Amino acid sequence: MVKYSQSLDSTFGALADPTRRAILASLLLGEASISDLASPHRISLPAVMKHVRVLQQAGLLSQKKVGRTRFCQLAPSPLQAAEDWIAQYRRFWEDTLDSLERFLQQDPPPEKQKEKKPWPPRKHSRNTRSN
Amino acid sequence: MVKYSQSLDSTFGALADPTRRAILASLLLGEASISDLASPHRISLPAVMKHVRVLQQAGLLSQKKVGRTRFCQLAPSPLQAAEDWIAQYRRFWEDTLDSLERFLQQDPPPEKQKEKKPWPPRKHSRNTRSN
Repeated sequence: MVKYSQSLDSTFGALADPTRRAILASLLLGEASISDLASPHRISLPAVMKHVRVLQQAGLLSQKKVGRTRFCQLAPSPLQAAEDWIAQYRRFWEDTLDSLERFLQQDPPPEKQKEKKPWPPRKHSRNTRSN
Repeated sequence: MVKYSQSLDSTFGALADPTRRAILASLLLGEASISDLASPHRISLPAVMKHVRVLQQAGLLSQKKVGRTRFCQLAPSPLQAAEDWIAQYRRFWEDTLDSLERFLQQDPPPEKQKEKKPWPPRKHSRNTRSN
């Protein structure tokens, strides 16, 4: 459990940087050298290597050496664990969206309509739902 | 696009801490005061408040004041954006799992079987799949 939690720490920590997310997006197209990964970014090669190291330590990227060139590959399994963790909240945001949709589609409840009839329009009618 | 990226920075950054993930898990059960959120953790109330502030800045939590008590509520929409981002990699890890499953289930390819016939059994027969 502790190991799983530490793994999520490093996965989410690695994903909290736009350059690292861009590196992972590049790797969706296939393996790439450090130079390939550096070319779209306006940062130095050592800076890209530092990001690659963070991704590798989080298990999101693996490297292999062919001759003098290092190639990076996407290692997607930590992303699956991160998605599994987030998925437990899916029901919650789907419920929120459903409630909003129902609220937007529904007619005013009959009780409120009856209340309104004998009285003049309220000044602060937007607050009636929270009473 | 920049705003979306900054939002993902703060969402993933907020999720990279086990106490903050535990606070979000507590809020799955419903709204809670800062004291309710602090009670399962062996850290001070100010430390919990600091974590709550990070979650609030990431839009993952909202607060309302009832009398002198502040209640926290889960705000799940940044999690949906995070899941959407991760989902683009799902195909990749599913492909990896499918390839592994096919590899484990498959018979040796016909060419390899033909090769075997004219020869006596190999000493290291477990390695024939990787030849």
